[in-house]
Amino acid sequence: MNTSASPSILPALTDASAITIVKIGGHVIDHKNALSNVLTHFSVLPGHKILVHGGGKLATEFAARLEVPQTMIDGRRVTDEETLKIATMVFAGLVNKNMVAALEARGLSALGVTGADADLIRAKKREVSKVDYGYVGDVESVRADRLLAWLNQGLTPVVAPITHNGKGQLLNTNADTIANAIAKTLSKDSRKFKVTLIYCFEKSGVLLDVENEDSVIREMNLKKFQSLKAEHKIFAGMIPKLENAFQAIGVGVNQVIIGKAEDLPQLMSGSAGTRITHG
Amino acid sequence: MNTSASPSILPALTDASAITIVKIGGHVIDHKNALSNVLTHFSVLPGHKILVHGGGKLATEFAARLEVPQTMIDGRRVTDEETLKIATMVFAGLVNKNMVAALEARGLSALGVTGADADLIRAKKREVSKVDYGYVGDVESVRADRLLAWLNQGLTPVVAPITHNGKGQLLNTNADTIANAIAKTLSKDSRKFKVTLIYCFEKSGVLLDVENEDSVIREMNLKKFQSLKAEHKIFAGMIPKLENAFQAIGVGVNQVIIGKAEDLPQLMSGSAGTRITHG
Repeated sequence: MNTSASPSILPALTDASAITIVKIGGHVIDHKNALSNVLTHFSVLPGHKILVHGGGKLATEFAARLEVPQTMIDGRRVTDEETLKIATMVFAGLVNKNMVAALEARGLSALGVTGADADLIRAKKREVSKVDYGYVGDVESVRADRLLAWLNQGLTPVVAPITHNGKGQLLNTNADTIANAIAKTLSKDSRKFKVTLIYCFEKSGVLLDVENEDSVIREMNLKKFQSLKAEHKIFAGMIPKLENAFQAIGVGVNQVIIGKAEDLPQLMSGSAGTRITHG
Repeated sequence: MNTSASPSILPALTDASAITIVKIGGHVIDHKNALSNVLTHFSVLPGHKILVHGGGKLATEFAARLEVPQTMIDGRRVTDEETLKIATMVFAGLVNKNMVAALEARGLSALGVTGADADLIRAKKREVSKVDYGYVGDVESVRADRLLAWLNQGLTPVVAPITHNGKGQLLNTNADTIANAIAKTLSKDSRKFKVTLIYCFEKSGVLLDVENEDSVIREMNLKKFQSLKAEHKIFAGMIPKLENAFQAIGVGVNQVIIGKAEDLPQLMSGSAGTRITHG
């Protein structure tokens, strides 16, 4: 692993290489200064890395301006044809390309992609059972070979949350799921990369008391998670995130770190956030 | 050069490889069926290739829906901050990613990029003299190494007409200029690639009589161009396009072909369009 602060000089990947996948979303995307700071921190993270981003509130804002009504079912957005257009424009266009340009200005060689590019992430349109979520894709496969080739070229993939079905249809896909799928794919089989997955969200980490930012659980393994869950000490909204994290750990991801995007250097060094490991 | 119809199996580039750069824009982008046919033709073009696209009328349509007033000076659009956002969303997002997904469905491995991605195309904001065109970029440099690496990976770059200045600023850039700059960069120095540049537009080729689609000038060299120009037999609007074509030929581009996107196979085989050569 290259530990210098120069982002552009990286050795070719070896079996022992560290690969860090950082997922950012929510309010940091909407706030120019916050985003700028996060991208600066990201640009100097040591080693090979991949950025996965959501779209913040911009898609909702453009939908309002374009007078495209948004339907929410159980807190989830329905992606009709017009909403998919907006998601593609905002996530793959506006957000992705401005991030790429900002990272380039910080000395990183960034390659902005969606799951459609080079068949990176193939997804299946979610089946209609009780609810029709429209053009929403559930990840089926990730082309690790593409990511590794780009990393070996010295490029940092910046992945927008749009996938495709291989038949020409773009699909809106959750950025957390994409980050998780990438981390798992780079960890499985005989690969020996040391994969770290960092989920950035609005809180300082997994909190024992959701009202208290100082109650971060610093380390968690499956046993601790299960006992805290049994004691109802974990906020219900965090449980799916944590279950996904433990699933990633289960297939070989080295560690999952959860915390604030603004704390990225501290999340990496272990002085902030919640660190989820096998152990 | 691979002449089979299977788009995905391509030999690694050698000095003698053919590289075809196709630029499409205008009405084919706006018409779903026309675009679908062009992408089918493009997907089976033999050899290594690069697609460069404009945005058709979609950016204008979205500007109207978003109530962003558009200023035209001498027939050219002024790109203010809001218009740049729309251009980035439409060209790099909506148009680029739908083309990529459509090409993937046709068996091609397509990589959709802007000039910001991997520092592919660096541009300079056009200086304000009499007119301020806003966030419009004039191409300064093209990273041939990036294009060649992607072609060698078996990827087909699909380039949207957005560049960057290396300092974090995206810039709106003419797609014809981008195609020209790519062709020239891949042709210059000691490179021996056989570069063909195909400009697709609304007409069947360079016409002797602009009202008569059957008056296509089939072959043109610099001498013929200059004599036709002197006799005022070339439509004024075509002259800058042709001058750019001859400039490309002058620095080593093998041939430039001008014609209708719908005729792509015939343009390649030489049975349609205007072929511009050293001659």
